[in-house]
Amino acid sequence: MILAVDAGGTSTRAAVVDASGRCLGYGTAGGGNPKSAGYDRAVSAVFTAAETAVARVPRPVTLSLALVAMAGAGQTMSRRAIAERLTELGLRGEVKIEGDLLAMFHSGTDQQSGCVLVSGTGCVAARIADSRLELVSDGAGWLLGDAGSGYWIGHAVARAVVASLDGRGPDTKLTALMLESLQLERTGERIHGRPQVLLDLIEALYRLQPVELARFAPLAFEAGDSVAAGIVESAASAMAETLGAVRGEESEGPVVIGGSVAAAVLGAEPLLGAPLRAVLRDAEVIHVSDGLVGAAVLGLRRAGIPVDAIVFQRLHESVARSREEKLKTPAAPA
Amino acid sequence: MILAVDAGGTSTRAAVVDASGRCLGYGTAGGGNPKSAGYDRAVSAVFTAAETAVARVPRPVTLSLALVAMAGAGQTMSRRAIAERLTELGLRGEVKIEGDLLAMFHSGTDQQSGCVLVSGTGCVAARIADSRLELVSDGAGWLLGDAGSGYWIGHAVARAVVASLDGRGPDTKLTALMLESLQLERTGERIHGRPQVLLDLIEALYRLQPVELARFAPLAFEAGDSVAAGIVESAASAMAETLGAVRGEESEGPVVIGGSVAAAVLGAEPLLGAPLRAVLRDAEVIHVSDGLVGAAVLGLRRAGIPVDAIVFQRLHESVARSREEKLKTPAAPA
Repeated sequence: MILAVDAGGTSTRAAVVDASGRCLGYGTAGGGNPKSAGYDRAVSAVFTAAETAVARVPRPVTLSLALVAMAGAGQTMSRRAIAERLTELGLRGEVKIEGDLLAMFHSGTDQQSGCVLVSGTGCVAARIADSRLELVSDGAGWLLGDAGSGYWIGHAVARAVVASLDGRGPDTKLTALMLESLQLERTGERIHGRPQVLLDLIEALYRLQPVELARFAPLAFEAGDSVAAGIVESAASAMAETLGAVRGEESEGPVVIGGSVAAAVLGAEPLLGAPLRAVLRDAEVIHVSDGLVGAAVLGLRRAGIPVDAIVFQRLHESVARSREEKLKTPAAPA
Repeated sequence: MILAVDAGGTSTRAAVVDASGRCLGYGTAGGGNPKSAGYDRAVSAVFTAAETAVARVPRPVTLSLALVAMAGAGQTMSRRAIAERLTELGLRGEVKIEGDLLAMFHSGTDQQSGCVLVSGTGCVAARIADSRLELVSDGAGWLLGDAGSGYWIGHAVARAVVASLDGRGPDTKLTALMLESLQLERTGERIHGRPQVLLDLIEALYRLQPVELARFAPLAFEAGDSVAAGIVESAASAMAETLGAVRGEESEGPVVIGGSVAAAVLGAEPLLGAPLRAVLRDAEVIHVSDGLVGAAVLGLRRAGIPVDAIVFQRLHESVARSREEKLKTPAAPA
């Protein structure tokens, strides 16, 4: 048995799997990214998710390896700190840390080469060759990159609304949606040459952390006017550029796509996602929800267990089943 | 005699002027904006600049009014706190606080209506009618607006360099200039699918406060390739939109332009500043360096002293002369 963990920014998932690809236990916890959650909370999230997963496995539990997938892999997390906590859960082997991108790719395929594009709060693409990151594009964070991400779209929405309210930009339905979501009212009053509501909006938005602007991304898909459509289309173009930078003409293997924003852009009206769909035209495209299956694939292989199409399919299905059961069953009190 | 103070983000200027528009004393100090310098340091900067200005005025000094121009006028500064400190310098009347935009406008003209566009670290435009802000556009800060500002240009430069280094964007001379300014070297080494120098650059840039990206704005004027030219041209378009939002077809009065970035864009090759120059085509355009003369104009008028073209011209010339003398004379020890 091995332990696979996918530690993300908002939640952490863990699974105990056997050599045949069966998922024996599944658990979740809060954000496990040391950069956003902090070091101690990240270690705790990994432990809590693992503990829940292990609790459902028949005794005795002996885990021969733990593979933890996370962003900025291994740069900030100490494998020893995680290993110490996991020993009490039955870990008798090593802790391996791998990048979240690699795990996301392997969640979609048993092949070892191809490309992956993830657009959620951030946006990044990579070319994978022999299960290693060969080329990575973007993922440069909210200030410097993440073009086409949830932050990027939410930021564009906020700028469009501010520009509209002070007369620089065209009217847009985004304004009403954003004011509503912040419970701000248009009074018509003006202060020192500016609408009161604009001053209120600016104050409310600067009170957020910049990355929290990602929460306004859904408005771009909801508003249905040309300003909103322009933002979604620019996001699709940016994602297409990011993927295009890693996927050459002769690229082999599938393109695995993850993240809620990539899904929303591809699911938007045909015209809006066009730039991204054009890049994907000749590719085998596989959508995944997270990197847990991939963490298990990588973990099994690192433990010397081959993962062929049959094992992969079994992993895929049994992790999905465990996830559904988890959703139906309320968690037992700790 | 009245005291005029122009409290800016990086420096504060003060002048003592008489009813005829003669500048009797001039002084400077550090940043006097309470938002960036903090409340106490802002009050101190106003006091220090005023103290230096008053020191050069023949005794006895009696100031019948002090007019302090600053961004976000009066919203955060207590006039009483300033008045208390200025009493020891001979202030016998009120302290008035006015917006920096209004002072900037009145630095350029003795007229009471027209428009003003300021692009420095931030960017904002206003229509002035009867010496009051009638309509203001942008000035929404680095995250939400300031389109065409030094921050905006520097941010675009940083994003273009990051995109170029990870293959999403075209090659640009901005990259070499930016790496040089941060003393980073291109090694050709790659880590986890990314160039080492890109990781170093991203780390160095996130160590800055976002607004500090403004320091890279000059590179856009220096690089001389199409990526850099595109950034300058977008900045000119953004400024044109911001000014256009406040300046109707039938707008009266001159357009006063301030801020180093506006000057640089208008001074750039003819093609680059074109969008902004197109908006200015039929206007009387006046360039100013700061809001000190305007603070004096507003101060005299508030004290009931009319400022006509002759008084304005005298103010303009004598403040400029005091400034030059100050540059030549090292400050006396405090």
